[in-house]
Amino acid sequence: LRTGFPEAIFAEGKEEPELIKIIEECAKRGRVLITRLEETKYNNIEEKISNLQNDGYEFEYNRKARILLIKDGEIEKQGKIGIITAGTSDVPVAEEARVVAEEAGCEVLTSYDVGVAGIHRLFHQIRRMIEEDVKALIVVAGMEGALPSVVAGLVDVPVIGVPTSVGYGVGAGGFTALNAMLQSCAPGIAVVNIDNGFGAAVFASTIVKQIDRKGQ
Amino acid sequence: LRTGFPEAIFAEGKEEPELIKIIEECAKRGRVLITRLEETKYNNIEEKISNLQNDGYEFEYNRKARILLIKDGEIEKQGKIGIITAGTSDVPVAEEARVVAEEAGCEVLTSYDVGVAGIHRLFHQIRRMIEEDVKALIVVAGMEGALPSVVAGLVDVPVIGVPTSVGYGVGAGGFTALNAMLQSCAPGIAVVNIDNGFGAAVFASTIVKQIDRKGQ
Amino acid sequence: LRTGFPEAIFAEGKEEPELIKIIEECAKRGRVLITRLEETKYNNIEEKISNLQNDGYEFEYNRKARILLIKDGEIEKQGKIGIITAGTSDVPVAEEARVVAEEAGCEVLTSYDVGVAGIHRLFHQIRRMIEEDVKALIVVAGMEGALPSVVAGLVDVPVIGVPTSVGYGVGAGGFTALNAMLQSCAPGIAVVNIDNGFGAAVFASTIVKQIDRKGQ
Amino acid sequence: LRTGFPEAIFAEGKEEPELIKIIEECAKRGRVLITRLEETKYNNIEEKISNLQNDGYEFEYNRKARILLIKDGEIEKQGKIGIITAGTSDVPVAEEARVVAEEAGCEVLTSYDVGVAGIHRLFHQIRRMIEEDVKALIVVAGMEGALPSVVAGLVDVPVIGVPTSVGYGVGAGGFTALNAMLQSCAPGIAVVNIDNGFGAAVFASTIVKQIDRKGQ
Amino acid sequence: LRTGFPEAIFAEGKEEPELIKIIEECAKRGRVLITRLEETKYNNIEEKISNLQNDGYEFEYNRKARILLIKDGEIEKQGKIGIITAGTSDVPVAEEARVVAEEAGCEVLTSYDVGVAGIHRLFHQIRRMIEEDVKALIVVAGMEGALPSVVAGLVDVPVIGVPTSVGYGVGAGGFTALNAMLQSCAPGIAVVNIDNGFGAAVFASTIVKQIDRKGQ
Amino acid sequence: LRTGFPEAIFAEGKEEPELIKIIEECAKRGRVLITRLEETKYNNIEEKISNLQNDGYEFEYNRKARILLIKDGEIEKQGKIGIITAGTSDVPVAEEARVVAEEAGCEVLTSYDVGVAGIHRLFHQIRRMIEEDVKALIVVAGMEGALPSVVAGLVDVPVIGVPTSVGYGVGAGGFTALNAMLQSCAPGIAVVNIDNGFGAAVFASTIVKQIDRKGQ
Amino acid sequence: LRTGFPEAIFAEGKEEPELIKIIEECAKRGRVLITRLEETKYNNIEEKISNLQNDGYEFEYNRKARILLIKDGEIEKQGKIGIITAGTSDVPVAEEARVVAEEAGCEVLTSYDVGVAGIHRLFHQIRRMIEEDVKALIVVAGMEGALPSVVAGLVDVPVIGVPTSVGYGVGAGGFTALNAMLQSCAPGIAVVNIDNGFGAAVFASTIVKQIDRKGQ
Amino acid sequence: LRTGFPEAIFAEGKEEPELIKIIEECAKRGRVLITRLEETKYNNIEEKISNLQNDGYEFEYNRKARILLIKDGEIEKQGKIGIITAGTSDVPVAEEARVVAEEAGCEVLTSYDVGVAGIHRLFHQIRRMIEEDVKALIVVAGMEGALPSVVAGLVDVPVIGVPTSVGYGVGAGGFTALNAMLQSCAPGIAVVNIDNGFGAAVFASTIVKQIDRKGQ
Ligand SMILES: Nc1ncnc2c1ncn2[C@@H]1O[C@H](COP(=O)(O)O)[C@@H](O)[C@H]1O
Ligand SMILES: Nc1ncnc2c1ncn2[C@@H]1O[C@H](COP(=O)(O)O)[C@@H](O)[C@H]1O
Ligand SMILES: Nc1ncnc2c1ncn2[C@@H]1O[C@H](COP(=O)(O)O)[C@@H](O)[C@H]1O
Ligand SMILES: Nc1ncnc2c1ncn2[C@@H]1O[C@H](COP(=O)(O)O)[C@@H](O)[C@H]1O
Ligand SMILES: [Mg+2]
Ligand SMILES: [Mg+2]
Ligand SMILES: [Mg+2]
Ligand SMILES: [Mg+2]
Ligand SMILES: [Mg+2]
Ligand SMILES: [Mg+2]
Ligand SMILES: [Mg+2]
Ligand SMILES: [Mg+2]
Repeated sequence: LRTGFPEAIFAEGKEEPELIKIIEECAKRGRVLITRLEETKYNNIEEKISNLQNDGYEFEYNRKARILLIKDGEIEKQGKIGIITAGTSDVPVAEEARVVAEEAGCEVLTSYDVGVAGIHRLFHQIRRMIEEDVKALIVVAGMEGALPSVVAGLVDVPVIGVPTSVGYGVGAGGFTALNAMLQSCAPGIAVVNIDNGFGAAVFASTIVKQIDRKGQ
Repeated sequence: LRTGFPEAIFAEGKEEPELIKIIEECAKRGRVLITRLEETKYNNIEEKISNLQNDGYEFEYNRKARILLIKDGEIEKQGKIGIITAGTSDVPVAEEARVVAEEAGCEVLTSYDVGVAGIHRLFHQIRRMIEEDVKALIVVAGMEGALPSVVAGLVDVPVIGVPTSVGYGVGAGGFTALNAMLQSCAPGIAVVNIDNGFGAAVFASTIVKQIDRKGQ
Repeated sequence: LRTGFPEAIFAEGKEEPELIKIIEECAKRGRVLITRLEETKYNNIEEKISNLQNDGYEFEYNRKARILLIKDGEIEKQGKIGIITAGTSDVPVAEEARVVAEEAGCEVLTSYDVGVAGIHRLFHQIRRMIEEDVKALIVVAGMEGALPSVVAGLVDVPVIGVPTSVGYGVGAGGFTALNAMLQSCAPGIAVVNIDNGFGAAVFASTIVKQIDRKGQ
Repeated sequence: LRTGFPEAIFAEGKEEPELIKIIEECAKRGRVLITRLEETKYNNIEEKISNLQNDGYEFEYNRKARILLIKDGEIEKQGKIGIITAGTSDVPVAEEARVVAEEAGCEVLTSYDVGVAGIHRLFHQIRRMIEEDVKALIVVAGMEGALPSVVAGLVDVPVIGVPTSVGYGVGAGGFTALNAMLQSCAPGIAVVNIDNGFGAAVFASTIVKQIDRKGQ
Repeated sequence: LRTGFPEAIFAEGKEEPELIKIIEECAKRGRVLITRLEETKYNNIEEKISNLQNDGYEFEYNRKARILLIKDGEIEKQGKIGIITAGTSDVPVAEEARVVAEEAGCEVLTSYDVGVAGIHRLFHQIRRMIEEDVKALIVVAGMEGALPSVVAGLVDVPVIGVPTSVGYGVGAGGFTALNAMLQSCAPGIAVVNIDNGFGAAVFASTIVKQIDRKGQ
Repeated sequence: LRTGFPEAIFAEGKEEPELIKIIEECAKRGRVLITRLEETKYNNIEEKISNLQNDGYEFEYNRKARILLIKDGEIEKQGKIGIITAGTSDVPVAEEARVVAEEAGCEVLTSYDVGVAGIHRLFHQIRRMIEEDVKALIVVAGMEGALPSVVAGLVDVPVIGVPTSVGYGVGAGGFTALNAMLQSCAPGIAVVNIDNGFGAAVFASTIVKQIDRKGQ
Repeated sequence: LRTGFPEAIFAEGKEEPELIKIIEECAKRGRVLITRLEETKYNNIEEKISNLQNDGYEFEYNRKARILLIKDGEIEKQGKIGIITAGTSDVPVAEEARVVAEEAGCEVLTSYDVGVAGIHRLFHQIRRMIEEDVKALIVVAGMEGALPSVVAGLVDVPVIGVPTSVGYGVGAGGFTALNAMLQSCAPGIAVVNIDNGFGAAVFASTIVKQIDRKGQ
Repeated sequence: LRTGFPEAIFAEGKEEPELIKIIEECAKRGRVLITRLEETKYNNIEEKISNLQNDGYEFEYNRKARILLIKDGEIEKQGKIGIITAGTSDVPVAEEARVVAEEAGCEVLTSYDVGVAGIHRLFHQIRRMIEEDVKALIVVAGMEGALPSVVAGLVDVPVIGVPTSVGYGVGAGGFTALNAMLQSCAPGIAVVNIDNGFGAAVFASTIVKQIDRKGQ
């Protein structure tokens, strides 16, 4: 019942030799995506997996997103999604989502640091994305997590809320943002785990895939 | 930027005279959906809002879903979704989702009480829904909330997890189910608030609407 | 260092004979305000404290606010404040605030059920209040508690956030609203306890009093 | 509806190149305040933003408050506020509040480490501040957070409670202090997030601004 | 190693026939104390255990304390303790402590509803108790639970803090009061469970007993 | 009533000189097991306890399990148990369990990283273990902790759930996995503390011991 | 892979007509166990399911355990287990465990209300059970939940801890007992959900079944 | 009302120059006790405060207790107390209590690492302390915190429970031990904050002081 999405490895908490072994095994089956891979860790293992480049793979490391792509060409795009962040501190999570969504066959429009403050700038960005016909909006926010509520009040497109662990005091860890999104009084929002840009992107890609299945 | 979904009133915590006033105001603008309306409360107000039936409205009260529809004809269906529950105690939340999704223009396939235990029966139901071309699956579960993880491992369709407050001890209030769904190791799941069948249905309908927007 | 504000009695959890005794003692010293007094409880004690009416007191019971005023004339108003609610379920808390603020010498402007959804209506109400020269805004909201953030982004007047226990699932008890207000990324907000309309009003009145002290 | 307060940048969690870019952009629009800026981080970026000094800006770094002011002259003072701390460990949060409040046009009186223990010393300090006509009191306390309750019992001036993350065991993280302030039995207190000296100061300055608006 | 304290039965949650059986068994061994016994429950069982009165026992039911004493004469007093409450809602817990402490051989001085507000009245009551030579102070408080801190700052006598479940919002259940007492910056306080007047009294009586053991 | 299991020392949080002293004391009474012993700590103390090797002891350090065995020959095996993990990150906890169980006289079958995803591979592993006649299954899982539920639905053998602190956001610390296992809708599961491979193994060995006691 | 245990229905939260339907369906497949069935609910449905008695079933309702057995003869006993409770309030949970364990083929020895206080009486009861050759001990305790730790320190038999929701203040809901059991410093304990006598019994029966499988 | 106990400074979180300044000020008024002072911090400041030794002060640094005494002779002892720990990891907290209690005029008997396991050894230690006529017992325990309950069941002396942050998983941070002590079913226990050896000792010394006040 399931179709092709490249295999993804969560690097956090895995020791380097272990990680190398897993990467090599996965690469036998096709493209690989390694997430939560810190730059120094990447630098340490790069050499040791360089043999994969002989097998026709290219490496593409995105520092902000902390993702390594081991790829063998470009992915064909199936549909558009939008990604919005409230602040600049939310950008790494958004970039994780962007890289994963592109790898999953989505064309991605981004608009970072629109906040709730400048309501007119937000409105403008949303309108642009709707006009570009995005099929889903990923809205990334920490602190009090109000942005998805405001966005969902403006559009009929599915809004995927991603709470981030940006905040302090009662907001530490991202739980305030998470709960605010779950308890939103604007319907049309579904939520993923704190800082889970990966999950939001995979979910968004499942929506985009539905549209393609339509004509079948 | 937003289009037509009937207005929804959340009846819980509203006193009867207040509720009647809000219903009458809403009904001036079109169809109305009253959620979380207990049967006795419905019986108490039914008479007092009966004048709306002169204005061409019909009443349809669903006891299990605790929803009153004040409608003026049938809604045209735009696409299919599936709704699955783990247990029988999750059915009221699933029924809330079903009634709302239908009102939002979705054709709904249901499969209640499939649990994680009888893995083969679950597999069979999922396959049927995929073959019927559902565009999203709403998976409702309380207790340890494992069902959405298992389902998302089987399909590429978006899975909307609805945790229910069914459980006791550490599971009381639905927080274990909620957290399990958010922390699922199977990607492709997004989650709504505990017992929020309404929100899951509205979200699912925004997915179905994307497909229609395609050819535009 | 402190000046006159009528004594206030919190009726919740006090048995009737006890309450009557406390009211009678307080009334010897001047006006009294009894908060969180349910209607039936009021009906039960009304007769038994009727002798106070011979001492020149009038009774004024506000059912929505659940407050009984035992007063001896009108209070002179010193300045204006505004009270806004997100939904209709937040109104009892707002009314508690209104009655207390008036008793504390404030003229009160209200605007209930403005939500975050209808951003233009909200904008209009805020503008009206600023033009009327309110010295503080009390913003009452449950669910995800986003309204004070939005309001504080629009004005330079002090915003007093009052989270309400309106919500369910992760929002039950008002903690999501409370945390969202405390963690707001818009500065200019201070917060009181969940459902504490009384505290918000007393606090707002301390602001209004500063203005009067100016010319001294 | 909003008027002039210098832009504020929250440095915590921002990488240095990013921070420099944001500072330079903000400085184009006027004075800038960089909060939560650790001394070493300041030392690292100082050189790289030194060109702003050619544009007529001066740098003023406050180590205790962890704030960098990028200023172009002095701010005119509009009214007085007081800042009190319970212990010496609360001073950094109080200093953050002081610097921000001065930048927002307040004259600030401080009294640090007055505790609840030496009730007579506390009483003396409060009296002094009231006589100096402060329009608001910011009271900063960790541990059991009792100080704002005691202060609010003594004065009619608005008391802004700032809980700090000073404490251990059940007091770790500042939640005991926060909850104690929110649940205070003395009315006249409103509260900001744990360690949020910035927010308390901005809020206090909105009160001071009301007084000026009076004669308009 | 242990000596005589009458047996105590916790009535809450026990069904009436069960309770009667336990009481009768205990009464064979001597005096009995039944705590958390609601008035109606007492009325229901009174008749059924009346035969104990033939065995030389007297019944003494204290409605406020919700305690039934089944006694066979008076207890000799060994030393004094003081019991103080912050508010009137804390009185039932204080009364539970008083009855138990007397039964455990303490002479009890009480001072209810002294609050933190009227600091001079509090000071007066404390002084009186110290002059009367109390060996321990039980301080009962809900809400923000600041009273034990203030008291312990004034005296060298052991202070036993009893948090009560009086409060709402963040104070609901008594956890704010409990944590404030545990995290007090005034040393000389030890704490018992929320609403545990019984435990505080037994503990205080163990202190009083030490004094008697002195001359041995 | 208790019989022989080697003494176990928990090394975490113990300083090296202290640890050496405890090890030497224990070794006088027989074999010793030192758990939670980091590799560098082991390297630091190895030399200093080398004299134990003269007393007939061998050292066996397992880096993954972080356990040092100080042993004097092999343990006789009494029965089989199985250990399964959901992911590779759970392996250290599983290895702690394996080493301890073997030391407690169990023969251990392992199957790591079977997840919930590949339901057929899981099914195959479970069948193999049952055919090998394991008397208990230790199932180790972090994240949403669903694996023990699925396993217990398939077998009648006692399933011992070990939640791990593998996860992030709402899953951080292992509490989601713990609660999911406790709240499982499949009966036949009992649970130990988060990351407690040691406890699971000791418990499993008590089951194996019952079988031996049978014929007595 | 699974063998015969009668089907069990959890009655709590199920409406009567629904319950009757489920019972009738289950009874077609064999014996049925209905747990958490309140006496009044049982009285209401008894008549309506009486037809099952014509099919050869007998009804056995246990009021303390709140269980209805619909049985067709006696179960053959395979091995012994012991059930111990700390207090009398824990007895309903213990009785749930007893009835379920007997239905699952265990002979059950019970010892209720042994507490931690009377250590010698506890010791005596434990010894008796070990001599009777119980294969597992179910230890039921609320409050601080210390009993399983003490028991596991005395025996080598598997100890299954069942925390109960008996307690108040910090112990309310059973979480203190649960955590104490999970965090016990005596190994040899595994734990089930709060008040889950059912789960403890099923788990204990899986242990007893292992012994029988031995000679196969 | 308060008498002499040396001033105590909490060093944790205080920077060195600040600490030196506070120490010098305190030393003007008499003996000083600096708690939570890490060894390296002590080494750093030792030199800089050495001038105090010219003023007749001696330094006594206790590494395990992390306390520096700045003293001018010995303290006269007024009465005995006992200190007991469950494990070796609890010893630092116990040592903090011992040093503080001695400084507060108590003679201290200690018995470390008695656990709940070896019930006979515990019994022996308790008996010895009672025979030595201790006036209070400080019982220090982490993990499940059962030791104070067991001790309080054996003696009539006041038991002061000190939960420690020793534990992991559900026991991390010491909250399980804290709650277990507060919820103990053995009366005669009062509790201080997690790891608060200081507070327990000050409290115990207030008990010892009562005995001396007796003959006055
Ligand atoms: N069952 C429900 N669950 C969650 N949200 C709901 C539900 N029913 C209605 N709503 C939302 O609540 C809003 C109405 O709230 P109210 O104005 O209080 O009636 C609607 O706009 C819906 O978005
Ligand atoms: N110390 C602080 N505490 C809380 N909020 C702050 C602080 N400093 C700045 N802010 C707020 O954070 C916003 C800037 O966030 P950012 O865009 O991440 O720099 C400002 O508009 C302020 O409202
Ligand atoms: N890895 C572990 N996890 C949990 N408990 C352990 C572990 N290792 C040892 N223990 C227990 O801790 C006790 C030893 O604690 P200690 O005296 O502090 O070394 C042993 O008796 C074991 O019951
Ligand atoms: N180890 C400790 N644990 C708890 N409280 C302490 C400790 N040491 C000192 N204190 C208290 O903290 C106060 C000093 O705090 P500070 O002014 O921050 O040094 C003293 O008056 C003591 O009451
Ligand atoms: Mg929308
Ligand atoms: Mg999927
Ligand atoms: Mg503002
Ligand atoms: Mg005041
Ligand atoms: Mg004191
Ligand atoms: Mg099973
Ligand atoms: Mg054992
Ligand atoms: Mg005792």
